[in-house]
Amino acid sequence: MIIEIEGIDGAGKTMQARLLKQSLEEKGHKVLIVKDLESTEIGRKIKEMFVSDTPRTKAVELFGFLCCKAHLFSEVVGAAVRDGNYVLCDRGFGSLISYFEAHGFERKLLEDMASIAVPNLRPSLTILLDLPVKEAIRRNMSKQTFSKFDNMGARFFEKQRQVYQTLSQQKDWRVVDAQMSIDRIHEEIMKLIGP
Amino acid sequence: MIIEIEGIDGAGKTMQARLLKQSLEEKGHKVLIVKDLESTEIGRKIKEMFVSDTPRTKAVELFGFLCCKAHLFSEVVGAAVRDGNYVLCDRGFGSLISYFEAHGFERKLLEDMASIAVPNLRPSLTILLDLPVKEAIRRNMSKQTFSKFDNMGARFFEKQRQVYQTLSQQKDWRVVDAQMSIDRIHEEIMKLIGP
Repeated sequence: MIIEIEGIDGAGKTMQARLLKQSLEEKGHKVLIVKDLESTEIGRKIKEMFVSDTPRTKAVELFGFLCCKAHLFSEVVGAAVRDGNYVLCDRGFGSLISYFEAHGFERKLLEDMASIAVPNLRPSLTILLDLPVKEAIRRNMSKQTFSKFDNMGARFFEKQRQVYQTLSQQKDWRVVDAQMSIDRIHEEIMKLIGP
Repeated sequence: MIIEIEGIDGAGKTMQARLLKQSLEEKGHKVLIVKDLESTEIGRKIKEMFVSDTPRTKAVELFGFLCCKAHLFSEVVGAAVRDGNYVLCDRGFGSLISYFEAHGFERKLLEDMASIAVPNLRPSLTILLDLPVKEAIRRNMSKQTFSKFDNMGARFFEKQRQVYQTLSQQKDWRVVDAQMSIDRIHEEIMKLIGP
């Protein structure tokens, strides 16, 4: 079973993925958390390129991410799902689509490419941790280090949040208010998972 | 000016690119030969992944190549063209499309993705070095080393050659018989370039 956790930077995705993993493991499940740029050798190589100072266009980033995703799902996620385990995606296809749509790429083409990258694995549940942009920026400001994909400014965050909200309506994602306390958000997520 | 040199493995692309470069330089032009997996840092990193034993799907390869192409054109080819130089692509978009179409991907989507990768640079001339598959295999057999993309068998080569031939009709590529001698092929190519 694949669960995607989405939301703009600062929404608390990584923290909630960890808490969810812990709770599911306490119930006896095997759980794997995956991140595009961290969970495979190819992902880590592509991350190296992205954090280096090599100049690049958004198209280079797009195809780099799609390459990671295709590899992550074919090599790691597929096997875990076949073994009956939970896979928690700390950012899934929703992130890819919202990020690049917010950068001006056409939704339909992004979705077609996502289908090629991952032909037969779909999330059973996508959770959007929805956070007002002002609060996201406040939280990101206090982070020790910025990644190259953070700190893109309020306007970009607003666009991305909008795309997330549209996607969540169209695709029946579950929206959780990310302004609540960490424990409260976790409780809400556990309710969505069910018994 | 961008010139793409296409053809199945063994057709003599690299050799003809070198001869063409030499002749154009003798005429006073600046000439750059580019190869997807060799001409940029990102290309070389992606090649490292491709030659390693990491298992991967065709989708991983497709997006890896598109990432290379996007980077190569935005960083290297664009600048050379703006400076008024010749760029010779030892395999261009024709290769990408024919290789992945021969592997079952849909042409329209491949072309849409190519347009995203390289939004505004098109080759002025595409030369197809056309070779019967039997002869290509004979030539590849005698090569010292096979790349991971060589030696895919006669059936695959036949498919790829067919796609090349269709593309060359639809897109007005110039076809040169690659069974001729190296010098004769070079002469034909120089005629296509013009004075």
